[in-house]
Amino acid sequence: MWAAVADVGRDAGGGYLRDAWSAADLELREWFRQEAGRRGLDLREDRNGNLWAWWGDPDTRPGVVTGSHLDSVRQGGAFDGPLGVVSAFAAVDLLREQGVRLGVPLGVACFTDEEGARFGVPCMGSRLLTGVVEPDRARGLTDDDGDTMADVLRRAGRDPAALGPDAETRRHIGAFVELHVEQGRALIDMDAPIGVAASIWPHGRWRLDFTGRADHAGTTRLADRDDPMIPFAQAVLAARTAAERRGVVATVAKVRVSPGSANAIPGHVTAWLDARGEDEHAVRDLVAEVGAGAQVGCESWSPRVEFDPSLAARLAAALGGAPLIGTGAGHDAGILAAAGVPTAMVFVRNPTGISHSPEEHAEPADCHAGVAALADALKELADELLV
Amino acid sequence: MWAAVADVGRDAGGGYLRDAWSAADLELREWFRQEAGRRGLDLREDRNGNLWAWWGDPDTRPGVVTGSHLDSVRQGGAFDGPLGVVSAFAAVDLLREQGVRLGVPLGVACFTDEEGARFGVPCMGSRLLTGVVEPDRARGLTDDDGDTMADVLRRAGRDPAALGPDAETRRHIGAFVELHVEQGRALIDMDAPIGVAASIWPHGRWRLDFTGRADHAGTTRLADRDDPMIPFAQAVLAARTAAERRGVVATVAKVRVSPGSANAIPGHVTAWLDARGEDEHAVRDLVAEVGAGAQVGCESWSPRVEFDPSLAARLAAALGGAPLIGTGAGHDAGILAAAGVPTAMVFVRNPTGISHSPEEHAEPADCHAGVAALADALKELADELLV
Repeated sequence: MWAAVADVGRDAGGGYLRDAWSAADLELREWFRQEAGRRGLDLREDRNGNLWAWWGDPDTRPGVVTGSHLDSVRQGGAFDGPLGVVSAFAAVDLLREQGVRLGVPLGVACFTDEEGARFGVPCMGSRLLTGVVEPDRARGLTDDDGDTMADVLRRAGRDPAALGPDAETRRHIGAFVELHVEQGRALIDMDAPIGVAASIWPHGRWRLDFTGRADHAGTTRLADRDDPMIPFAQAVLAARTAAERRGVVATVAKVRVSPGSANAIPGHVTAWLDARGEDEHAVRDLVAEVGAGAQVGCESWSPRVEFDPSLAARLAAALGGAPLIGTGAGHDAGILAAAGVPTAMVFVRNPTGISHSPEEHAEPADCHAGVAALADALKELADELLV
Repeated sequence: MWAAVADVGRDAGGGYLRDAWSAADLELREWFRQEAGRRGLDLREDRNGNLWAWWGDPDTRPGVVTGSHLDSVRQGGAFDGPLGVVSAFAAVDLLREQGVRLGVPLGVACFTDEEGARFGVPCMGSRLLTGVVEPDRARGLTDDDGDTMADVLRRAGRDPAALGPDAETRRHIGAFVELHVEQGRALIDMDAPIGVAASIWPHGRWRLDFTGRADHAGTTRLADRDDPMIPFAQAVLAARTAAERRGVVATVAKVRVSPGSANAIPGHVTAWLDARGEDEHAVRDLVAEVGAGAQVGCESWSPRVEFDPSLAARLAAALGGAPLIGTGAGHDAGILAAAGVPTAMVFVRNPTGISHSPEEHAEPADCHAGVAALADALKELADELLV
């Protein structure tokens, strides 16, 4: 399976460009359809564009679901998302080889637009499904070309008016487990191939607007300048020092300068601040501190997610004593957990510790261990639903 | 004349977008042709796309030339460039009304691509004409769409193979005077409507490349990060403090971040540093200091230009004791002066002191004073050529 998707949306430098609803994303969705078809799974696309491949009928009783996403950040790696989808199909194959009958329907899921690379809001598919994003807001979000999500959906043959909370699809999900490549170094440090998620840190994204006065770069005295690049640069450095002081992480990784000519002092700088940490108050205080010189707007906010502790503990035990780890990354699993779905996550060790980059990696042996763990987790969750 | 060009290339916010060879630029070039035609001037376009409207035949003897440019920086103002061209035609009209015969040919010039907004190198028309830019380098420069200058010229019906030093056109220019809106506050402070340029500061543009390692914004510990946004922000602040300390100006107004996703630590940041000042060593030392953490490439460099001091002094006296001022802005007049043409510049007061912005302004009374001064300057220069 891996070979079929390895080159989709990959550029000459090895980075992936798989924006939601791009040609690469549509090609991956078609691959998902084919994999479902080859296994005789019943394929459904919900009103928000999420894909579901069912073994058994979830209309008769809620099932256990596993999966992840196929879109990527820009210049991302091969594993973030696809590893969870490929492993989900592989776990179905493994259960069938083992002759296991779960007693409940089993679904493989592909969530739409998890990274938010195109429209700026991550986990869009699961947020819409569970009603934590207003469909009107989603439809009106624009990409770098100025196209709205509504335009983009129509062009992809989808109906933007259908977006919104989806109680029927939600009812199908009795429990959910997402397998994901680890995005940090915890499993390296613990020398463990597999881990189980304990929690997702509170995290959010804020837009900072710095306004100054456009002027000539050569003839304007320093004392007469109102250059918004200066408070922007101060904010970048303040984000780092405040994060160190407060024990959280903060990143400024996207910036837009207007007019953006080398010989014109900018009139306006817009920057995006990503901040996350164990402690929600520390994150919020950091944003207030860093945004002091700017107009600040919150683009997304995800409160702390605690995965069901008894489920996580049982799962860790079933996986041979896998360690429980927290993470600063948002996932569709976090959105579902916050919406009340019994949810777990399994992480596969990443030997580089690097993510959202082509250097992200997972060794084949660890991937196989991940599939076995996922099959065990699905049995565990199915037993839970049968009780 | 002013009304005919006021709306060309103007966007809804009032800023001008007049890139070289854009539809707006072609419309302005057509306007130039018509203004030349209405006055019975002989219109020529040289091999580098510069336009010349001659009263008298410069092939018989070199003439005095005045003019400026019609392209703009992005989101620029109405006066930078066009005021010099409109005033040039108005000065021809004034000399004719006064019944003045100069005794030498008089040319009105429109230089191509003075701002370099499209291809990054300013004063392209005059640089090509005088041979200080290699035609091969010019042809290969690309715009934001990835089109080369050669592509763009061909599309505009010009022959890119013709670009290069133009001895014949150069011979026509016996002397040159450019009128320009002031781009700073010197004339405001001196309460003078008109000034004469003494010098153009040494100035240049450098590209700074900061390389780090792309990674996940949520899961990468601060200690494990190599985020190039941090040294970039330090360079922005270092540019300001170094400029204050060294008595020059420095600006970072254009930046490109890769991959530019809000949730991925960047792998690469490219910034452009514009630096200028009275003292060339101070400018070069500043660039070395600011670029310490980056790979530095020089994109353009213009050494100090001293306009002919005796010509400037006589002109200032002829204009009723107009002040002599230096400027940090580059101009085609500076390129011609460096190429050995007797050259002068007349500045018209800008009551906002702001330039490269829609807020740039000149009062009608000051503009009329500028035309009268330009007519006087042309007589002065013609007398010089007749000696």
